[in-house]
Amino acid sequence: MYKGGYTGKVLRINLTDQTAKEETLPLEIAKDFIGGAGFGIKYLFDEVTPKTDPLGPENKLIFASGPFSGTTIPCASRMAVTAKSPLTNAVGVSLTGGYFPVELKFAGYDALIIEGKAEKPTYLWIKDGKALFRSAQKLWGMKTTDCQQIIKNELGDQNVRIACIGPAGENLSKIACIINEMRAAGRKGLGAVMGSKNLKAIAVRGSGKVSISDEGKLKSARSAFAEAMKGSPVLYPQFSKLGTSMVVDHTCAIGIFPTRNFTSTGEYAPADKLGVEVQTTRNVGSEHCYMCPVGCSQLKMARTGVYAGILAEGPEYETMFSFGGVTGVDNIDAVIAADRLADELGLDTMSAGVTIAFAMELYEKGILSKKETGDIDLRFGNDEAMLTLLRQMAFREGFGALLADGSKAAAAKIGKGSEKYAMHVKGLELPAYDVRGAKAHGLNYATAYPGADHNKGYAFQEIFGIPVPYEVDRLSADGKGKLTKWNQDVRCVTCDCATMCAFLLDMAVPAIALKNTADLMDAVTGLQYTPEEVQTVGERINNLAKAFNVGSGFTRKDDTLPERLLTEPLKGGASKGHFVGKDELKKMLDEYYAEREWDIQTGTPTRKKLTELGLGYVADALKL
Amino acid sequence: MYKGGYTGKVLRINLTDQTAKEETLPLEIAKDFIGGAGFGIKYLFDEVTPKTDPLGPENKLIFASGPFSGTTIPCASRMAVTAKSPLTNAVGVSLTGGYFPVELKFAGYDALIIEGKAEKPTYLWIKDGKALFRSAQKLWGMKTTDCQQIIKNELGDQNVRIACIGPAGENLSKIACIINEMRAAGRKGLGAVMGSKNLKAIAVRGSGKVSISDEGKLKSARSAFAEAMKGSPVLYPQFSKLGTSMVVDHTCAIGIFPTRNFTSTGEYAPADKLGVEVQTTRNVGSEHCYMCPVGCSQLKMARTGVYAGILAEGPEYETMFSFGGVTGVDNIDAVIAADRLADELGLDTMSAGVTIAFAMELYEKGILSKKETGDIDLRFGNDEAMLTLLRQMAFREGFGALLADGSKAAAAKIGKGSEKYAMHVKGLELPAYDVRGAKAHGLNYATAYPGADHNKGYAFQEIFGIPVPYEVDRLSADGKGKLTKWNQDVRCVTCDCATMCAFLLDMAVPAIALKNTADLMDAVTGLQYTPEEVQTVGERINNLAKAFNVGSGFTRKDDTLPERLLTEPLKGGASKGHFVGKDELKKMLDEYYAEREWDIQTGTPTRKKLTELGLGYVADALKL
Repeated sequence: MYKGGYTGKVLRINLTDQTAKEETLPLEIAKDFIGGAGFGIKYLFDEVTPKTDPLGPENKLIFASGPFSGTTIPCASRMAVTAKSPLTNAVGVSLTGGYFPVELKFAGYDALIIEGKAEKPTYLWIKDGKALFRSAQKLWGMKTTDCQQIIKNELGDQNVRIACIGPAGENLSKIACIINEMRAAGRKGLGAVMGSKNLKAIAVRGSGKVSISDEGKLKSARSAFAEAMKGSPVLYPQFSKLGTSMVVDHTCAIGIFPTRNFTSTGEYAPADKLGVEVQTTRNVGSEHCYMCPVGCSQLKMARTGVYAGILAEGPEYETMFSFGGVTGVDNIDAVIAADRLADELGLDTMSAGVTIAFAMELYEKGILSKKETGDIDLRFGNDEAMLTLLRQMAFREGFGALLADGSKAAAAKIGKGSEKYAMHVKGLELPAYDVRGAKAHGLNYATAYPGADHNKGYAFQEIFGIPVPYEVDRLSADGKGKLTKWNQDVRCVTCDCATMCAFLLDMAVPAIALKNTADLMDAVTGLQYTPEEVQTVGERINNLAKAFNVGSGFTRKDDTLPERLLTEPLKGGASKGHFVGKDELKKMLDEYYAEREWDIQTGTPTRKKLTELGLGYVADALKL
Repeated sequence: MYKGGYTGKVLRINLTDQTAKEETLPLEIAKDFIGGAGFGIKYLFDEVTPKTDPLGPENKLIFASGPFSGTTIPCASRMAVTAKSPLTNAVGVSLTGGYFPVELKFAGYDALIIEGKAEKPTYLWIKDGKALFRSAQKLWGMKTTDCQQIIKNELGDQNVRIACIGPAGENLSKIACIINEMRAAGRKGLGAVMGSKNLKAIAVRGSGKVSISDEGKLKSARSAFAEAMKGSPVLYPQFSKLGTSMVVDHTCAIGIFPTRNFTSTGEYAPADKLGVEVQTTRNVGSEHCYMCPVGCSQLKMARTGVYAGILAEGPEYETMFSFGGVTGVDNIDAVIAADRLADELGLDTMSAGVTIAFAMELYEKGILSKKETGDIDLRFGNDEAMLTLLRQMAFREGFGALLADGSKAAAAKIGKGSEKYAMHVKGLELPAYDVRGAKAHGLNYATAYPGADHNKGYAFQEIFGIPVPYEVDRLSADGKGKLTKWNQDVRCVTCDCATMCAFLLDMAVPAIALKNTADLMDAVTGLQYTPEEVQTVGERINNLAKAFNVGSGFTRKDDTLPERLLTEPLKGGASKGHFVGKDELKKMLDEYYAEREWDIQTGTPTRKKLTELGLGYVADALKL
């Protein structure tokens, strides 16, 4: 049985029946999938069919922390939220941090499986092994910060931790997120899944502790981890002081910070307007996740114009891009205000910004006019228009209603050849890296199971030049199939399953990630792995997620990039002239599938591979 | 010595020297002034000269709770904030509730005296008898809700209670308030006094208890109080469910809900747009003050247009008037949004709305044009303009800068005869009762020491027809001098000093207020009073406050009402044709001064009266 780390319990909430059932987490699931996204994807595959309507009551929403959550291990108390994504129809996994994940563990659960649909707006109140269904009628329509405060007041406990949706999730926007504190499980429209179940919020409070298999081993494994963190060239003091948004300067310098819907890199210099020097004038402090000595989450306050006094936790790097560079907005105060507004409305800042940028390009090209936009002057850089649209998107009003489900759905409605300006993969909008200058990063966008998710295989080798496991040339396609498999599998197991902070992997300790995870698993849980076996867990989960997608109809043709990145060279900056040629992409994909030992023609897992990973039942299910 | 109720300690904070000194609260001060405003005005008179610049470091800001704060007595844990008002130059007292007042008591103090001026933005952190001065550099410019949350996070304690200012207070707006939770010590610009001291916030946490002189006596006195509450015809369930805003329907019905800068009562029917029926569609819950079984504070959420999803604690009745009727705005969602915005900016909703209504009338009359307003179409009912101006007022930007110090200051700058449209007494903007239909209420506006403050002598006899201490005709001037003295003295001692909730006096227990206070004082503190002696405490404080004002240069000529109320009859509604004639006002004032045994010519306290009240030193100070 469990020696530590896990509570060994899963709480199954059925909103239709208003029942809460405690189940045992089988030890073999813990061993084979470790936690977080591993648990989420395992339960999703077993319980949700590929034909399930993501916004129907049959979809399930799974919150799962990892074995290290609630221990003294730094930066490892995060949580994955998993469901079939309404945005992509693929597996949707989003990670979040803060304090909710650990509180759920303290309340007694490794995971929460939410199924069915409540008849009326409801919130869950989970306290130390007990779950209550409470009316959220009066919370329906409320913004996320107020919602959390009102629930705390109602429960008479200011230390309750809450995950909730805003109006966007209620209105089933397919780019709606789930907010806890001022953090987001942002991508893939999981907020809409929560909204479709009439579930406004989950409030959690626990007084439990996480037991440890071997305190002595933990002490030494933790020390090795902390040492590796100290050894990072950027973690202290820079990253700790500046957070992810510091990356703006770097990606601008190497020419891969996307601007104006990926049309104009190098044409203007967003680093001057949105970079560290300006950011620093807006910083007013930072917040830490549970047991995090870094505290990268920077609070910024707008200082000028109508935005003065608006506070955001962020904008993170991605939001500097999505409400900054990609929309052409270069007023940092507008970016801060849009970040806060999106958080309050419960909209994914990334998909929302990229979708608005898409509409801006259509407007600039004359494909959309003021007639369609409801008189909004939707040129690049119009911050007021951006904020107006965010509100409209969350409430499905005016022109914003057209954008409420992301760029792919908007392009389908608009027609007129607009699809080629929609910057997404599998429906998921592109993150803040122009992969014409970072090709493994691009291959990851093309192949990652949720669509264009940088966090599923972040090519830090290309972005930051960290030579682990080997040195690469970011502008070349050579060897990127192998690298991407490594990035995806290592990232999956360390960050998404063992829920260690992705930023550590990117900037600090990639070299020891697998060994470190093995050592920490041994110390905390008593489950033993070699570093290679740890990596195999990542591979297993990537195979399982891919298998779910195959069942949903995805094939090799879906593993691609937006046309623009495949045909238009970057127009300026340090990566000028580069693009991901179609032949290059084909070559990288061939190598990638070969490395994965998947079928190269279809890009799908083979029975042989699945069986080798202990997923023979998956091969059966897919009738391979 | 103290037997109960009081901690017997006052904390003196000097921001210039960054020192905190604990002082003993002399027992005679407790006996003679009871608490709250009594303490505030006593310390103000003793320590601040009438010539003091209200925004200079010599002004003092005094927070004082009452002897019942923190006991089990319902609805009696409020607090008075006192300073020389920058808006009026008179004594400024504002009351607030929630949880901050009792937390201060639990931390060990009956009162907090804040003096001097910090060199840089600072916040105070008071915990169980210890006070720390902390940097508020990063909080400067922040809105009030975020500010409170960030301080809680910084102190690592979600149960800290915080009073703070918003941008309006920082920018020394003379109509800035102090916010705790979503409540306000709203009026008289006390937020600007806090801002002038570079004091962003006060955070308090205490684990102390309030001792009780005689638990047996308390039990029976408390029962009598609770019985009287139950006996109220309106407290349960109406007031408990609907809060103060329910009064809109009533004052509309009797024709005293002011609209369009007091020009058009009866011309349109705000009750249809802002009354209970519509309010109920926006109610999403309620909040309680400490030990309050009523929970009148209604949370309302805007439902339509650009305001959808905005939550406010309120709007209270006064704000339904100030952002509704008096500005002609009849969109309840705009009123809710403006209420929240004003709270976030730290602007007094009442003065802010009435000042905007003043500007709207000038615009409608052509005294102001778009040239002056910066292209704002400032007609009555323009909700968008109202919200724009609120932000501008708090930040002193654009046309709003002209309005940032209230209507009197704005009229002085605008000139062109605009003063006659400025609806204030002594600089304090009028509350939500058209006193042309409630004449004692008007006499109170004219004579109350802070200016037009309904809470200093609320004529519930006129407004609600409660025949205590006797029945009156609201449209007549007869006997209103005597009534107003009774109202002011009783209100002062019960609500402002013993810090019992004003709404109880208005709607529930006026008949037993004095006896009840005497009984509770005996039970809690062991200090004994007859009901008449309780009333005398109120009289003493009204005399002391008036004496301070006399020192500041106020005379009988300042005890008046805006010209409009004295000359223009109400144009419609149930009070149509009525106004407060100048002769009527003179008659009421003569009676009032005579009842107060003050000099009828000058309207000032006499040596004889002051000496009789134990205020001989005040007569000396004034050289009477």
